[in-house]
Amino acid sequence: MQALVFDGTQPILEPRRDEPVAPPGECLIRPTRLGICSTDLEICRGYMGFTGVLGHEFVGVVEVVAEKKHADWIGKRVVGNINCVRSICDLCKAGLRDHARDRSVLGIFERDGCFSDLFALPVENLYEVPDNVSDDHAVFTEPLAAAFQILRQLTVEGRPFITVLGDGRLGLLVAQVVNQLNATVRVVGKHEDKLARCEKWGIKHRLLGDVGLRQDQDIVIDCTGSPRGLETAMQMVRPRGTIVMKTTTTPPAQDEPHIDLSPLVIHEINLIGSRCGPFPDALEALSAQTIDVDSLISKRMKLADGVAALKAATRSDTIKILLEP
Amino acid sequence: MQALVFDGTQPILEPRRDEPVAPPGECLIRPTRLGICSTDLEICRGYMGFTGVLGHEFVGVVEVVAEKKHADWIGKRVVGNINCVRSICDLCKAGLRDHARDRSVLGIFERDGCFSDLFALPVENLYEVPDNVSDDHAVFTEPLAAAFQILRQLTVEGRPFITVLGDGRLGLLVAQVVNQLNATVRVVGKHEDKLARCEKWGIKHRLLGDVGLRQDQDIVIDCTGSPRGLETAMQMVRPRGTIVMKTTTTPPAQDEPHIDLSPLVIHEINLIGSRCGPFPDALEALSAQTIDVDSLISKRMKLADGVAALKAATRSDTIKILLEP
Repeated sequence: MQALVFDGTQPILEPRRDEPVAPPGECLIRPTRLGICSTDLEICRGYMGFTGVLGHEFVGVVEVVAEKKHADWIGKRVVGNINCVRSICDLCKAGLRDHARDRSVLGIFERDGCFSDLFALPVENLYEVPDNVSDDHAVFTEPLAAAFQILRQLTVEGRPFITVLGDGRLGLLVAQVVNQLNATVRVVGKHEDKLARCEKWGIKHRLLGDVGLRQDQDIVIDCTGSPRGLETAMQMVRPRGTIVMKTTTTPPAQDEPHIDLSPLVIHEINLIGSRCGPFPDALEALSAQTIDVDSLISKRMKLADGVAALKAATRSDTIKILLEP
Repeated sequence: MQALVFDGTQPILEPRRDEPVAPPGECLIRPTRLGICSTDLEICRGYMGFTGVLGHEFVGVVEVVAEKKHADWIGKRVVGNINCVRSICDLCKAGLRDHARDRSVLGIFERDGCFSDLFALPVENLYEVPDNVSDDHAVFTEPLAAAFQILRQLTVEGRPFITVLGDGRLGLLVAQVVNQLNATVRVVGKHEDKLARCEKWGIKHRLLGDVGLRQDQDIVIDCTGSPRGLETAMQMVRPRGTIVMKTTTTPPAQDEPHIDLSPLVIHEINLIGSRCGPFPDALEALSAQTIDVDSLISKRMKLADGVAALKAATRSDTIKILLEP
């Protein structure tokens, strides 16, 4: 089978990689749509020290199950949680399954990803996709779930001012999700063409250069994908306000200045790290069509052209690139 | 009058500095005890870009008031909030007086500090010291209030494991305060002699080198005073746990590696910046003698020997140095 692989130096297409075998408790999925995420691009810059098959955003059909008791899953159209528990730990027991100490993560940590013709995932990670959700929409389940995670972490009182910092793939999903709150939401980014998507959603948007950094936002959500996004967030959030940090990157280059974290203490800022989120919430929103993902699709490419697709995804005028088998 | 001044390069004793004049709303205080804080030492390394009279920990007697209506304060023994509001802003109105946009801070930002024979402070910042609290104890009000601030910011459920990271001036106050919670508290530090103080308080303590960094603490309070304390805190706190950040420092030297903040996102850590705190809580604890500050006094020196005192305060075997006029 073909697979898009990061070999430690660069992404390459392996046209004849061995098909995976499903270990006990797992299944093999044939993806129908794949999504490129900024984390894939970071991995290609060395983030997490990962090597292997890339990718963690997918929708696909279950083709093989390792255990007979899971046979009902065969043929079903699914999406799946990317955090795979290898052995039950104290955190699993405490309900923090996504933080299992002994976990692998699809295409990110110690497990081949989904950018291939066939890949393995534990059956317990699967969610069936409702019939009225197309493949094009379902492939957004994972990043949309990550956006919904913010709603589970924030306590919103009054009618707060919320800035979503970053107008990329994740920022434009997050903006739509937090716009469902009783809040005044704006997106601040660097790209007029990307920000323009906010018009149809009725969400305010501003270019970063046009915004005063006045420490007047109750909540700032950093979706910049840049290690320096936090600096801007600290300049925007009010004292005792909240920064939600969605950005995982490698640290800045060594010759760049250190990020001064003292404003967090001086202004008593509450910084909340936020990663993966609830798939049911995302699937429900996609089924009810309360989130517009069509406007985020910049391009469709073939998995066979995956190397070019990864390169295209780094362009500043690109939002989401979907891959097809 | 004499004053201990940071001139932008080094701390110096000015033997004949002009006495201050109390502007409207303010008073002049003659300090009886002064405390050296790590922030004073950071300022002498360039933190905040401050120049002027150092110091913000004091107890003293009100000698002069600018306005007749404040005459009752004359002769009273007081401590005082170090954040001075110059004009009322939206944050003041929202109850965040200590975060006033237009503020000066005693000995830290745009206001001469208390390390002198006489200094000015707004009358509205004063708290009268109860008769049963000695000068030696009252001078701890400000840092103890900063420790109590943590109780106002944390939501404690169940019986959490709390690590106080750092066995210095602030860490040993914080440890005693959080030990009043329904929690399993330990102090982790680098100095056996300082940690030994925890014995009489019944608080567990460990040397940093003897502790496994196992991400198993529900709450870690960074009182290290080091820009790299956060790295250790991230290795100790459990996923979805809380780091309280008390440390304000200049960033690491440029040739030191960047601090990798991605664990905050990956483990969905909640980081809470924490600065000044409630004086009434601290005075009440000092009056009730529920906090032992006597054990923290390493040395008493004269204000006239302030330069040597600042130097002594940087020694790793020193906890609190008190200055007397």
